[in-house]
Amino acid sequence: MVKIEKPTLLLDESKVKRNISRMVQKANRCGVRLRPHFKTHQSATIGEWFRAQGITSITVSSVDMALYFAHHGWDDITIAFPVNWLEIAKLNHLAQTIRLHLLVESVETGQFLAAQLHHPASIWLKIDTGYGRTGIPWTEKQKIIEVANAVAAASHLTLTGLLTHAGHAYGPTNKAQATDLYHETVTRLQSARGSLAYPGLLLSLGDTPTCTLAETLTGIDEIRPGNFVFYDYMQAYHGVCTPDDIAIALACPIVARHPERQQLLIYGGAIHLSKEHLTLPNGHFHFGALALPTESGWSDPIPNAYVSRLSQEHGQVQADPAFIEQCKIGDWLLVLPIHSCLTANLRQAYLTLTSEVIPMAGIL
Amino acid sequence: MVKIEKPTLLLDESKVKRNISRMVQKANRCGVRLRPHFKTHQSATIGEWFRAQGITSITVSSVDMALYFAHHGWDDITIAFPVNWLEIAKLNHLAQTIRLHLLVESVETGQFLAAQLHHPASIWLKIDTGYGRTGIPWTEKQKIIEVANAVAAASHLTLTGLLTHAGHAYGPTNKAQATDLYHETVTRLQSARGSLAYPGLLLSLGDTPTCTLAETLTGIDEIRPGNFVFYDYMQAYHGVCTPDDIAIALACPIVARHPERQQLLIYGGAIHLSKEHLTLPNGHFHFGALALPTESGWSDPIPNAYVSRLSQEHGQVQADPAFIEQCKIGDWLLVLPIHSCLTANLRQAYLTLTSEVIPMAGIL
Repeated sequence: MVKIEKPTLLLDESKVKRNISRMVQKANRCGVRLRPHFKTHQSATIGEWFRAQGITSITVSSVDMALYFAHHGWDDITIAFPVNWLEIAKLNHLAQTIRLHLLVESVETGQFLAAQLHHPASIWLKIDTGYGRTGIPWTEKQKIIEVANAVAAASHLTLTGLLTHAGHAYGPTNKAQATDLYHETVTRLQSARGSLAYPGLLLSLGDTPTCTLAETLTGIDEIRPGNFVFYDYMQAYHGVCTPDDIAIALACPIVARHPERQQLLIYGGAIHLSKEHLTLPNGHFHFGALALPTESGWSDPIPNAYVSRLSQEHGQVQADPAFIEQCKIGDWLLVLPIHSCLTANLRQAYLTLTSEVIPMAGIL
Repeated sequence: MVKIEKPTLLLDESKVKRNISRMVQKANRCGVRLRPHFKTHQSATIGEWFRAQGITSITVSSVDMALYFAHHGWDDITIAFPVNWLEIAKLNHLAQTIRLHLLVESVETGQFLAAQLHHPASIWLKIDTGYGRTGIPWTEKQKIIEVANAVAAASHLTLTGLLTHAGHAYGPTNKAQATDLYHETVTRLQSARGSLAYPGLLLSLGDTPTCTLAETLTGIDEIRPGNFVFYDYMQAYHGVCTPDDIAIALACPIVARHPERQQLLIYGGAIHLSKEHLTLPNGHFHFGALALPTESGWSDPIPNAYVSRLSQEHGQVQADPAFIEQCKIGDWLLVLPIHSCLTANLRQAYLTLTSEVIPMAGIL
C-alpha cells in the first residue's frame, strides 16, 4: 500500500489502461478516428499509454497545452477552444512545426487567421448543436456559409470539417438517452454540413457520455472524448460508467472526528478536489464519494458517505455511524472526485498504486 | 497597461498595501495581535509587505505552507488546521526551528503530540463557536477540560489559549450584524475559557467579515483574518468591503461573441477562477463580476455583467447589449473573483500593474 502524508491523487494504472482500451476498441469497431482530449490528464506519461494503443492524434484545450504535448512528440493536435488572437505568436510556432487544427466560429477570426497566421493550418467550424456555450448555432446556415467562405479564402487555411461538443450530454442518462442524443448531434452536424458546397468536409464530436454509451458511432469521422480516461463520480452518478471504472481517487488523512453529528474532518479541501459538486435530491451539495484503501487500490464507494462541505483545506465527511466508528484520526480515506479533470489539474501529479509519481504539464 | 496573452491574475499592489495597512491600524488601535492568515496570498513577496508594516507572526493552513514561510524567515507560525498525524516528521522539524503553534481538539491528538512531538510547541484548543466545521463545541465544557488536561500533561507542550474561526460570518452582513457576531464569538470563547483552571489563556479568532466590520476588537488577544489582503467579489457582494477594495482580478481574453443571447465567451474557466459561486436571487450561479482594463488598473464592476457559466477553460459572460457591443474578439476583460483564495491558488503567480511577476509557494 502507498504511503500517504497529505492529500495525494492516486491513480490506478490498470483502470486507466482499461478505459483507454475500451474506447480505442469502440472507435476501431465503428471506423471512426479517436482523437482523445488530453485536458483531463495533462500528462506526457499518460499520453504514452494512449500512443501504445495506437493513438496518433489528440485534442487539447489551450495553446500552452498544445505546446506541452508537441514538445512531447505529438504532431497532430486540435486545440478545441475558439482561437485566442492574443496567442498568435505561439500559434504560428505550432503551425510551423506540427499539423495544427484550429476552431473558428466567426468571420472575424477567419479573417484574423487569414492575415496573421503565416503557416498552414487545418480549420474546423465550431458548431453549436444545442449546448449553448459557444459555436455557430447549427440552424444558422447563412452564418456557417459566411465563416466557411472566410476560411476558404485563405490559401494556407484548409477547411477540414465541422466540430461540436455536446456538453448538454453531461447529466443523468442511460444507453437509450445517450444514443438518442448522439444521433441528434450527428444529424445536426450533417444538416450544418449540408449547407456548404465544399466537398469532403469531416464531422467531429466529443463528449464522454455519448461516446461511452451510444450503441454505435455512425455518421461521423472523429470522436474527441477526454474524461473517459479516468471517469469520475459524476459520470458514475449519472450512469455513464460504473464506480469501478473511476481510475483516480484523492487520498485524504482523517484529522478530526465528530461522531455526535456523524461527521469526520479530512485534510482535503477545495484546493485539492475543486468545488465541483452534485446536488442531491434533498438539495445538499455532494463534493465527492468515499472509499477505503485496500491492498490493491480502493474499495467500492461507501454507501451514504460523502464530502458534504469544503473549505480551502478542510473536507467535511457525512457518513453512517458505523462507518464513522471505524475511522480513526491518523487513518486516511479516499475521495472519488466529482470532476476528475478539475481535481487532476489542482494536484499536478499522480501517484500510482506502485508508488510511482507521474508528473503533469504544470500550471497552464 | 500590462500585456495579456492568456488568463493572468493581476494584482494592484497599492490596494494590497492599503488593505494590509487598514487591518494593521485597526489591530494596533484595539490592542490585539494581528496574526494574518497567509493562505490567501501564499507568497513570500507579499509576506514581506506585511513584515514592512510590523507583522511578525502569521497563520497558515497546512504544514507545507508553514515550511514555505519558515524557509522565508517567518519564525512564529500558527498552523490553523487540526494536527495531521501523518505529517509528524515535518512538524518535528518545524517545532525544532521556529515558534510553532498547533491546534488540538481531541484527547487523542493531545496524547499523540505528547508522545510523538519531541520539541516544544504552543498549543491552542480549537473551539467551535457556531460554525459547525470542526473544533470542540464551546458548550462542551467537560471535553474542553479533558483535552486541555491531555495537552498540559506534556511538559514540552504549552497550553497557550483557545482559538476559533467564525466561518458562519461569511454571508450577507453589515456593521451591526458583524459586530453582534463578533461579540457572540468572543463571549463563547470566554465562556469556554471559564471552564479551565489554567491561568493566562489567550483568545484568538479570525475571519475577514467580523475583523473588518466589527466596531472594535475587544475581549480577545489575537485576530487571524486572511482574505482581507485581497478581498473578493463575495466580500463586496456581502457588504464586507467595497468593490474598490478588491486587489486582484483575472485578465481574460475575449474569444467569441454571442450578441443574440447577450453573451461573450472568454478564455478563463474553472481552472483559472475556481467553481466558487454566488447564487443570485433568480437562482442563477454567478462566478465573477466583470471590469474593463484602465490605464491605472481596472474599472468599477460593470452593472449586470457576470460570469454565468464555467467549463474547464471557457467562461461564459452574460451582460447588457451595450456592453456586449463594445467588446471585441481580441480584447480582454477582467473578472473580479468570487473567492480570491481559491483563484490565487489556481494561478500560482501574480502580475502587478507594473508588469512584475510575483511568485507563490507552488502546489502545496
